[in-house]
Amino acid sequence: MAEAVVLLSGGLDSSTLLAIARERGFEVVALTFDYGQKHVRELESAKKVANRMGVKEHIVLSLDLGIYLRSSLTQGKMRIPLGRSETEIRTGIPDTYVPARNIIFLSIASSIAESRGANAVFIAVNAVDFSGYPDCTPEFLDAFGKVLKVGTKAGRIGSPIKIEAPLLLKTKAEIVREAVRLKVPLELTWSCYLGGTKACGRCDSCQLRLKGFLEAGFKDPIEYEVHQ
Amino acid sequence: MAEAVVLLSGGLDSSTLLAIARERGFEVVALTFDYGQKHVRELESAKKVANRMGVKEHIVLSLDLGIYLRSSLTQGKMRIPLGRSETEIRTGIPDTYVPARNIIFLSIASSIAESRGANAVFIAVNAVDFSGYPDCTPEFLDAFGKVLKVGTKAGRIGSPIKIEAPLLLKTKAEIVREAVRLKVPLELTWSCYLGGTKACGRCDSCQLRLKGFLEAGFKDPIEYEVHQ
Repeated sequence: MAEAVVLLSGGLDSSTLLAIARERGFEVVALTFDYGQKHVRELESAKKVANRMGVKEHIVLSLDLGIYLRSSLTQGKMRIPLGRSETEIRTGIPDTYVPARNIIFLSIASSIAESRGANAVFIAVNAVDFSGYPDCTPEFLDAFGKVLKVGTKAGRIGSPIKIEAPLLLKTKAEIVREAVRLKVPLELTWSCYLGGTKACGRCDSCQLRLKGFLEAGFKDPIEYEVHQ
Repeated sequence: MAEAVVLLSGGLDSSTLLAIARERGFEVVALTFDYGQKHVRELESAKKVANRMGVKEHIVLSLDLGIYLRSSLTQGKMRIPLGRSETEIRTGIPDTYVPARNIIFLSIASSIAESRGANAVFIAVNAVDFSGYPDCTPEFLDAFGKVLKVGTKAGRIGSPIKIEAPLLLKTKAEIVREAVRLKVPLELTWSCYLGGTKACGRCDSCQLRLKGFLEAGFKDPIEYEVHQ
């Protein structure tokens, strides 16, 4: 049975991704990073999701990088923006951007995949309902695919690790519908950047998630601070 | 003064690289990885070299990856090949190859560089006197440069972090000459894959180093197990 490394943050998108990788017939090795994010709570969600959905192995890696990364997701003195309008979310690159985060995640996932002889790395990037992060676009994935082709042994003398991004061009509503169809335990997922006891409902990530549930016609099973 | 992140392993090449970055007018942030390599001794060399040569900051990062990486540099049950002929070294990709190692190193270095507003990342890859690793070639560096251009904020709305590889097309003898010219403390460097008390003189890395000193007409100041 072919194996895939699935980047799992514990959010709506990556949990749905895991279900898609399984539906496509892969044995899943889930990979989660503790990189100093304030919403470290998502790690607990990742563990619960991986456990509930059943994976071959769940690797949780610590990257002791938080103090070096300029992002409001990692720096205490930078505030995570709340209550931005849809137009604001769709414009520019906010300071929740973590420099080269997906490049780092894909590099390590590819290294582990190549080491194990796995065929693919799944990543839940999305270029539709997102915050404009440059490492979530088709051009980025194409460029990274080229790096694996020329820069790894598997790419040079075998077949390169394939980067799979099945959510890339889906709306958040479509992702919610996929999650429901695939029986993803949505109540265990965590998307909020703030990482409080309840989701804030106001950060970009909460807003995009809520919009997805609204448009898909489902109720989000997690609790929010702000009454929706 | 412009800042550069310099990937420093503690070997001959990366120590020379550090001197070149300084000569080019950069303030140097040295970056060293503990990724589970057997020759962990190189980390001590990296610290001594950084200290002796003077850097703005030396970041030593632990990547808890060793058990996941299929390489004779990290796996106890895999033997590091010794005594290979020059033809053997020049043919194929040996199992000292660490899957996607330079992709991981460059990703993290670029993330730190972008976070700090540094202009460049220096890496000591060499495609002449090397073991055929695919992540040490011009094509690889070009492909990675493209990833930084499309996949980072600096690449999209500023100027991308530049990957500098001044040793790429030099012979090992030329690197030794550069090291001598730039007064690199060669006695502090460590290249041997085995990481014993003296360099083994027989692994690919020792052999390439010794050949470089021989051809450059200098005596290598470090001690070897095998009398040279």
